[in-house]
Amino acid sequence: MIEAPATSASNNPRGLAFAEAKDYLAEAETSGVGAVIVPESVDSFPKPILRHKRPRAAFGHLLHLFNRPYLRHDGVHPTAVVDPTASVDASAAIGPYCVVEAGSTIGAKVNLMAFCYVGENCHVGEGSTLMPHATLLRDVTLGKRCEIGPSAVLGHAGFGYYWDGEKQVHVPQVGGVELGDHVDVGALTAIDRATADTSRIGDGNKFDNLVQVGHNVTIGKHGVFASQVGVAGSTTIGDRIMVGGQAGFADHVTVGDDVILAGRAGVMGELMEPGMYGGAPCMPIRTFHRVNTIVPDLPNVMKRIKALEKKIEELESKP
Amino acid sequence: MIEAPATSASNNPRGLAFAEAKDYLAEAETSGVGAVIVPESVDSFPKPILRHKRPRAAFGHLLHLFNRPYLRHDGVHPTAVVDPTASVDASAAIGPYCVVEAGSTIGAKVNLMAFCYVGENCHVGEGSTLMPHATLLRDVTLGKRCEIGPSAVLGHAGFGYYWDGEKQVHVPQVGGVELGDHVDVGALTAIDRATADTSRIGDGNKFDNLVQVGHNVTIGKHGVFASQVGVAGSTTIGDRIMVGGQAGFADHVTVGDDVILAGRAGVMGELMEPGMYGGAPCMPIRTFHRVNTIVPDLPNVMKRIKALEKKIEELESKP
Amino acid sequence: MIEAPATSASNNPRGLAFAEAKDYLAEAETSGVGAVIVPESVDSFPKPILRHKRPRAAFGHLLHLFNRPYLRHDGVHPTAVVDPTASVDASAAIGPYCVVEAGSTIGAKVNLMAFCYVGENCHVGEGSTLMPHATLLRDVTLGKRCEIGPSAVLGHAGFGYYWDGEKQVHVPQVGGVELGDHVDVGALTAIDRATADTSRIGDGNKFDNLVQVGHNVTIGKHGVFASQVGVAGSTTIGDRIMVGGQAGFADHVTVGDDVILAGRAGVMGELMEPGMYGGAPCMPIRTFHRVNTIVPDLPNVMKRIKALEKKIEELESKP
Repeated sequence: MIEAPATSASNNPRGLAFAEAKDYLAEAETSGVGAVIVPESVDSFPKPILRHKRPRAAFGHLLHLFNRPYLRHDGVHPTAVVDPTASVDASAAIGPYCVVEAGSTIGAKVNLMAFCYVGENCHVGEGSTLMPHATLLRDVTLGKRCEIGPSAVLGHAGFGYYWDGEKQVHVPQVGGVELGDHVDVGALTAIDRATADTSRIGDGNKFDNLVQVGHNVTIGKHGVFASQVGVAGSTTIGDRIMVGGQAGFADHVTVGDDVILAGRAGVMGELMEPGMYGGAPCMPIRTFHRVNTIVPDLPNVMKRIKALEKKIEELESKP
Repeated sequence: MIEAPATSASNNPRGLAFAEAKDYLAEAETSGVGAVIVPESVDSFPKPILRHKRPRAAFGHLLHLFNRPYLRHDGVHPTAVVDPTASVDASAAIGPYCVVEAGSTIGAKVNLMAFCYVGENCHVGEGSTLMPHATLLRDVTLGKRCEIGPSAVLGHAGFGYYWDGEKQVHVPQVGGVELGDHVDVGALTAIDRATADTSRIGDGNKFDNLVQVGHNVTIGKHGVFASQVGVAGSTTIGDRIMVGGQAGFADHVTVGDDVILAGRAGVMGELMEPGMYGGAPCMPIRTFHRVNTIVPDLPNVMKRIKALEKKIEELESKP
Repeated sequence: MIEAPATSASNNPRGLAFAEAKDYLAEAETSGVGAVIVPESVDSFPKPILRHKRPRAAFGHLLHLFNRPYLRHDGVHPTAVVDPTASVDASAAIGPYCVVEAGSTIGAKVNLMAFCYVGENCHVGEGSTLMPHATLLRDVTLGKRCEIGPSAVLGHAGFGYYWDGEKQVHVPQVGGVELGDHVDVGALTAIDRATADTSRIGDGNKFDNLVQVGHNVTIGKHGVFASQVGVAGSTTIGDRIMVGGQAGFADHVTVGDDVILAGRAGVMGELMEPGMYGGAPCMPIRTFHRVNTIVPDLPNVMKRIKALEKKIEELESKP
C-alpha cells in the first residue's frame, strides 16, 4: 500500500519516491522508502518499482495528486471586519479575523485565510490567496491567482529620507504596488509602495521568503527570487531573471532579460548581457569560480610574490 | 489636469514629475508623463513645465500635498481586547483586533491600526503609529511619533545561549527595549530586548524592512539602516550612521559618529573614524573600490605571477 | 537596595552587574551601576561588591531569579476560533484571537499567546509556547517545550518551481515540518514544509530572528543559528552546528557534526570536517583571517607585481 510521495532517502515504507541518477537510486535501495519510480533503463531493483521515461515528471504528477488546496472558510466569517464601502465578491472566502478597509475590492474566488489585512484602496484579483497575517497596507493591486504568503507585507512606505541639517525627514510615499497575474510572494517578504507611481511586479514572478523589494522597483515577467534577496529602490529588472539566495541589487540599477545570479551575488551597476553571474560586485560566473579558487590561496600567492622579490634582489645584486 | 505626482519615466498623462539631470530630462521628454518640474535654466521643453530653483524640493512639497495619513479607527474598536490595568489615552485610536496587555500605556493620539499586540509593561508615546500585525512583546517603550511597520517585532528575547555540556541553555533576557522620539521601524524588522538593562535606540533613527537589531545594542541618534542589515548583540553605534542594505555588525563592537557603510559591508571590530567604508571586513571605501577592480582580475594576476616565476627561472639559469 | 540585573555599563544605581575581565571591571567602576559581582581575586573596589568564584554563572542565576514567564491567558479565550475537530488539552492556554483549524492538537500546558494561527493537521507538543502572530500553516508538528517567536512562519510551501517553456510552475509541496523538543524559533523566522516527507529539525536547535530554513532540510541536534542565516532546500546538517549571522548554505549540501561558521560564511559544498570556517565559499578560519589581511592590501600587491615586472624587464634587457 502506497500512501504518500516520498524522497529517495525516506524511511516511509508506504512512500513512493523517484530516482533518476545513480546516487539517488543507491539511496533509494538502502533507505526505508517503500517503492521507487525509476528510468526505463533500470532492469532489476530490490524494491517494487514503476518504470517511466521521465521519473521526475511522473513524480511531479504524483505530487499534484496528493496536493490539497489551502483551507477556505467560505463566505464572510462572522469575525471578519469589512468596511461597508469595500466590495467583496460573493464567491470570495473571507476567513476569521480578516480586516478589509474602505474602498477595497475582493475578486471572485479569492481566499483570505485568517488575520489578513487588506488596507484602503487595495484590489485583490480573481482566485488570489492571502495566507494568515498577510498585509496589503494600502494602494496595493494584485492580479489574478496570486499567492501571498504568511506575514508578507505589501505596500509599506518606501524607505526614502533626506537630511534637513538636523534630522532625517521621510519623503512621503504616495504611490502604490501592482502585481500581475500568477505572482507568488513568500512568507515574510516585503514589497514597498512607490514614492510616486507604482512598484510594478510583472506576471508570473515568484518570490521566496524574507525577500525585500524596494519602492519604485520594476520587474518584468517570470522571474524567480530565492530567499533573503534584496532589491533596492528604483531598480529595473527584465524578464525571466533567476536570483540565488541572499543576492542583492543596488538602487537605480538596470538589469536586462535572462540574467541568472548565483547566491549572494551583488548587482551594483547596469547588467544587460544575458548569462550567469556571481560575486559582489558580480562578474561572469566562470570568472567568479576561478576567483573562488584563488582567494583562499592568497596567503600562498603572497609567499610566491615575496620569493620573487627576494630572487630579483639577488639577481639585481649580482655583478 | 494634473492628478498625481509621478516619476519622469511614468506613463501617466495626468502625472507631474520632476527632472534635474540631463538623463531624467530626456526620459521625461519621451515618457508618457504629463508635465515636468524643471530647473530654471531649461528654456524650452516639448511638454508643459514648471520652472523652479530646486525641482527636487518642489517635488517633495508636491508629495506632501498628496500624502494621506494612515487610516485611523478612532476610539477603541469593539473587537479590541484591552486589559483593565492598561491605560489608554482618550485621543488614541485602537483599531480592530488589537490586544493591549496588563500594565501598558497608550499615549495621546496614538494609532494602533489593526492586529497590533502591545504586551505587558509596554509604553507607546504620544502620536506614535503601530501598523497592522506589529508586536511589542513586552517591556518595550516607544518615544513620541514613532512609526512601527507591519509585522515588526520589538522586545523578543535576545539570542543568548550557553552550552551546559549536553545542550544549549537560554540565558534569561529580563531587560527591555527603548526607542527615542521619531524612530521609524520598517516592516518585518526585529529589535530584541536586552539580557539586562535596555536595548536603546536614540531619537530619529530610521530602520528599513527586515532589519535585525540584537539585544543590548545601543544606537545614537539619527541613523539610517537600509533593508536586511543585521546588528549583533551588545554593539554600540554613534550618531548619524548610514548603513547600506545587507550590511552587518559583529557583536560587542563599537562604532563612532558619522560613519557611512556601503551595502553588504561587514563591521568586525572597532570603527571610530568618520568616513565611508565598504567590504567585509570593511575598509575605507576608496580601497574597497580598488580591491573590487582587482578581484575579478585575479585569474589574470595569477598568470602574471606565473610568467614572472618562469622568467626568473630563466634568468637564474643563465650562466 | 538592588532592584534588577544590570550590565557593567549601566547607569542604574539599583542595578547589580557582573564583571570578570579588567575592562569590564574598569567600566563598572566608572558607570552608574550600583553594585557588582566580581571574581574572588578582587580585593577592593569603590562600590559594593559580591565576590564569587564564577561571576558570570552567579549573574546567570540572578537573571533566572528575575525572569518572568510569558503571559498566559488560561483556558480558551472567548475570542479564539477553534475548529470542533481540533483537540485542545484542558491545561492549554489559547489566547485572544487565536485560530486553531481542523484536525490539529494542542498539548498539555501549551501557551498560544495571541493571534496565533495553527493550521490543519498541526500538533503542538506539551509545554510549547507560540508567541503573537506565529503561524503554523499546515502539517507542522512541534515537540515538547518549543518556543516559536512572534510572526515566525512554519510550514509555508517549499520554494520549488520548474520552467515549462512559458512560465514558472510551482511543484506541489505536500510534506510537512517536524521539530523535536526544546527547539526555539526566533521572531520572523521561516521553516518551509517539505516537497514530500518532512523538513526535520532535531531536538534542542535554536534559531534567531529572520532565519530561513528551506524545504526538506534536515538538521541534527543542538544547533545554534544566528540572525538572517539562510539554509537552502534539501540541505542536511549534523549535530551541534554553530552558525554566525547572515551565513548561508547552498541547497543539497551535507554538513557534518561540530562545524562552526563565522558570520556571513557561505557553505557551497560538502563540509564534513569539524572545525571553524569563514568566508564564502567557506575555508578554514585561520586561512580566512589571513585572506582578510591580504584583500584590503591587494592594490599594494598589484604595485609590487608591477614593480617586479619592470625589474624583470630591466634584468632581461641587460646584455
